[in-house]
Amino acid sequence: MLSDPFKSHFLFLILSLSLCVSQTLALNSVPEPDASALTYLWPLPSEFTSGNRTLSVDPDLSLAVGGIGGNSAIVRAAFDRYRAIIFKHTSGISIFSRFTGRSSVYDICKLKIIVNSNNEELQLGVDESYTLFVSKNDEKSIIGEATIEANTVYGALRGLETFSQLCSFDYGTKSVQVYKAPWYIRDKPRFAFRGLLLDTSRHYFPIDVIKQIIESMSYAKLNVFHWHIIDEESFPLEVPAYPKLWKGSYTKWERYTVEDAYEIVNFAKVRGINVMAEIDIPGHAESWGTGYPDLWPSTSCREPLDVTKNFTFDVISGILTDMRKIFPFELFHLGGDEVNTDCWSSTPHVKQWLQDRNMTAKDAYKYFVLKAQEIAISKNWTPVNWEETFNTFAENLNPRTVVHNWLGAGVCPKAVAKGFKCIFSNQGFWYLDHLDVPWNEVYTAEPLEGINDTSKQELVLGGEVCMWGETADTSDVQQTIWPRAAAAAERMWSRRDAISTGNITLTALPRLQYFRCLLNRRGVQAAPVTNKYARRPPIGAGSCYEQ
Amino acid sequence: MLSDPFKSHFLFLILSLSLCVSQTLALNSVPEPDASALTYLWPLPSEFTSGNRTLSVDPDLSLAVGGIGGNSAIVRAAFDRYRAIIFKHTSGISIFSRFTGRSSVYDICKLKIIVNSNNEELQLGVDESYTLFVSKNDEKSIIGEATIEANTVYGALRGLETFSQLCSFDYGTKSVQVYKAPWYIRDKPRFAFRGLLLDTSRHYFPIDVIKQIIESMSYAKLNVFHWHIIDEESFPLEVPAYPKLWKGSYTKWERYTVEDAYEIVNFAKVRGINVMAEIDIPGHAESWGTGYPDLWPSTSCREPLDVTKNFTFDVISGILTDMRKIFPFELFHLGGDEVNTDCWSSTPHVKQWLQDRNMTAKDAYKYFVLKAQEIAISKNWTPVNWEETFNTFAENLNPRTVVHNWLGAGVCPKAVAKGFKCIFSNQGFWYLDHLDVPWNEVYTAEPLEGINDTSKQELVLGGEVCMWGETADTSDVQQTIWPRAAAAAERMWSRRDAISTGNITLTALPRLQYFRCLLNRRGVQAAPVTNKYARRPPIGAGSCYEQ
Repeated sequence: MLSDPFKSHFLFLILSLSLCVSQTLALNSVPEPDASALTYLWPLPSEFTSGNRTLSVDPDLSLAVGGIGGNSAIVRAAFDRYRAIIFKHTSGISIFSRFTGRSSVYDICKLKIIVNSNNEELQLGVDESYTLFVSKNDEKSIIGEATIEANTVYGALRGLETFSQLCSFDYGTKSVQVYKAPWYIRDKPRFAFRGLLLDTSRHYFPIDVIKQIIESMSYAKLNVFHWHIIDEESFPLEVPAYPKLWKGSYTKWERYTVEDAYEIVNFAKVRGINVMAEIDIPGHAESWGTGYPDLWPSTSCREPLDVTKNFTFDVISGILTDMRKIFPFELFHLGGDEVNTDCWSSTPHVKQWLQDRNMTAKDAYKYFVLKAQEIAISKNWTPVNWEETFNTFAENLNPRTVVHNWLGAGVCPKAVAKGFKCIFSNQGFWYLDHLDVPWNEVYTAEPLEGINDTSKQELVLGGEVCMWGETADTSDVQQTIWPRAAAAAERMWSRRDAISTGNITLTALPRLQYFRCLLNRRGVQAAPVTNKYARRPPIGAGSCYEQ
Repeated sequence: MLSDPFKSHFLFLILSLSLCVSQTLALNSVPEPDASALTYLWPLPSEFTSGNRTLSVDPDLSLAVGGIGGNSAIVRAAFDRYRAIIFKHTSGISIFSRFTGRSSVYDICKLKIIVNSNNEELQLGVDESYTLFVSKNDEKSIIGEATIEANTVYGALRGLETFSQLCSFDYGTKSVQVYKAPWYIRDKPRFAFRGLLLDTSRHYFPIDVIKQIIESMSYAKLNVFHWHIIDEESFPLEVPAYPKLWKGSYTKWERYTVEDAYEIVNFAKVRGINVMAEIDIPGHAESWGTGYPDLWPSTSCREPLDVTKNFTFDVISGILTDMRKIFPFELFHLGGDEVNTDCWSSTPHVKQWLQDRNMTAKDAYKYFVLKAQEIAISKNWTPVNWEETFNTFAENLNPRTVVHNWLGAGVCPKAVAKGFKCIFSNQGFWYLDHLDVPWNEVYTAEPLEGINDTSKQELVLGGEVCMWGETADTSDVQQTIWPRAAAAAERMWSRRDAISTGNITLTALPRLQYFRCLLNRRGVQAAPVTNKYARRPPIGAGSCYEQ
């Protein structure tokens, strides 16, 4: 006689079989895909092989986990999210067919996710690699197989996204199919830092909208949400140490509490996305003085922050202390761009302070940035600064500084030559508010351009597309971000040789159009790909796949 | 000794008390609202009084139901949806404060919903009235009260929307507050039919996007989703009786299964929204012939549908039979607009058919429309037709016909004068694809214009804003719909005298801007209100409440 545990295991197997194969009426007449068809995956995986079979996926697809990290809440929640995406059209059908007797043998009844580490810390360079195998594993067995194996839960998330993109709803058979099986995919990102900047100062974005954006980032395998929280126009974030700061918000309703920020960080984390917060100093900070006017050089000359006062640095330190509790990511952005020092030169007490120290305004800019860097480093942060800091006083920057390029070409080559790490955001290509940059120019912009030495290439962390907020609010932000952010996402994820050769109008454009329609199907307002200007409406009636 | 049921009831009361009042540290310093402030409700309720108190709402707000219809799955699901909306910012705080000991006495711990009927049929004219009472009900009691009473679950849904609009998150106290309490609201719609048309033929909208639109309609208390499913460009819907019809879809992925359609109808129903389906015949139907070319007069002249063949009417009957199973709403839209009969006059076999019957092409148009009406009526549908049918042969239309105005002013007055029911959609004001119509012109368009006789006014069912799809797809549809659809929604819901007097720049604009920001907070991409052209980006940085 069988022991009890064995019996229940056996019973479980029987139940699994009966759920997956409730009747033996097979869906035989599935269309075979065009063998020459493109691989409609975005971004393109680093290595893959495919076959010529079509497999059906059970709408009651179950999850099996393995490895010491497999039994993770992050994995289970992600499986549930992706199941909702994959089986969007079959939920009704599944129930339906049970009653009508229309039923099927499915090739894939179970997705196995193996995670080889239970360390769920999400930091720069976390292992996002995965393998994904999808096949009818044994002709004699009726249970098929799909397996994701990864070293971390974050690799498993990337694998789940790819798996979801392999699954298509077939309107003929009303079932989810995987074409061109068996698939063997071994994938990993080219760059560790693949970011999107959102500016919540020029316009306030409600937390639901920020979540929508972060969720959509995960579809393109982007992994850093650069939260440009504050700027001269408004200060929406609560800072407990200096509770009057968010008096600089536009209205009392356009604010983020500490709890909102926590929630955003956690929402991003479980999607494998780090949040890099920014306070842009000493320029772009006029809104700070609404609550604390002492931060202004004077009430009539309000930017940059007053460099002369200890209070200024006390406030910065207080903000960084409070933010350190919210943002676990090792990078923190200190801004430093577009600093117009006229107010320093013209305000009597600041002018006097400069004279007393025999400093020029430019010296004071350097003094300010370096002092802020010290504060950030003292709180165990790696500082990121916009490129003007590097362009102006590279030799003084803390060597840990990550230089964030934006003004134009050639900055990362210079920065890495001096041993600095670099993030590429050349505004001519990767500023999403530049509406006249078409998808192909976004796609071909290359973070490693001009850097040939492999050891120097490694200092380029990656890149970031920037969604500045002057003309972007809740009404138009997603169609300004997408589909062009996806073009940059493939540039940053996929192998350079695989995406830099051939005619991209043939190799990339149809896949990008397909991905844009995928975003639409998932409820994301991605704009037509081939419009002359970004985020414009479609020019007339037509299929998503051709616009 | 108490009997067991009584004991458990008593225990429940104790638990309720302890949950709601975990400590006695009150949040006393809540700001009092400006007594002269507007009532930020949209659409404006028909009767209401407010006070000058501020009440706090327990983030663990519980639901109590009453009446024979109160224990409804529709009510419970709606309560859960609205709780997520109302307590968006407090979920983290609620858990937080339990650990930090920061806790509060709340004025409102329970929402009572009383529904006096258990009939959940949703038909034209269903009772949507409700009363909503929010007060700290007794100074000596620590449990406050909010009560919605309605005759149907659909009235309860409208009351829940209003309740959610009374609740504001206060960033100072980090709690949800109701200002200007006590509130006594007695509300009901002015018109039974308050529609939004969506055209899924010129562009396909994924079901997730259709659900987003329907969800947002419920925020403005719109109650009819007019699904213009098919047009000349594409035929996305599955019709089991004629399975080749959806070969007329743009691609094999831009389709709706029968199950998708069921799901949309159900999703709308539980939000109190009927789905009025349309097949626009005999014009606007070229896409039908992709699957069945016999429906075209000839392969070179494809519209209107071939009037001569029984097959044409067999297909219409088949479609209506299949659709009757999906769409329970009593109204069905048969189109009938913009019929260019040139193909009938020029195609030899049609020309011959007309001659044999001594009919003009115009006669054939009438013949077609009336025959389709008969088919619809035989399937227990009330036919709706665009106004050209009325303008051309009013005397022959079935007296049950609902005339759908669109071309311009004056049609509803003529239609109701002849005893027809009417829906107002004057394209000069309520066609949302007319981007140059500002919010105030949408707002002041009046369905009863030119109709003074009360008995005739009753024949105007209401109105509808129309979102034609030539330049609207997933990327831009919500910002084309909102906020202007909300302007029409208040016109159709609120008392005419209350919204037609005074300076609307003072009485309506600030409320509409507030409602637009409310939509944004709920994740809906409503565009700035005061842009010269609809759906344009904000012109620069600034607060949502001023754009």
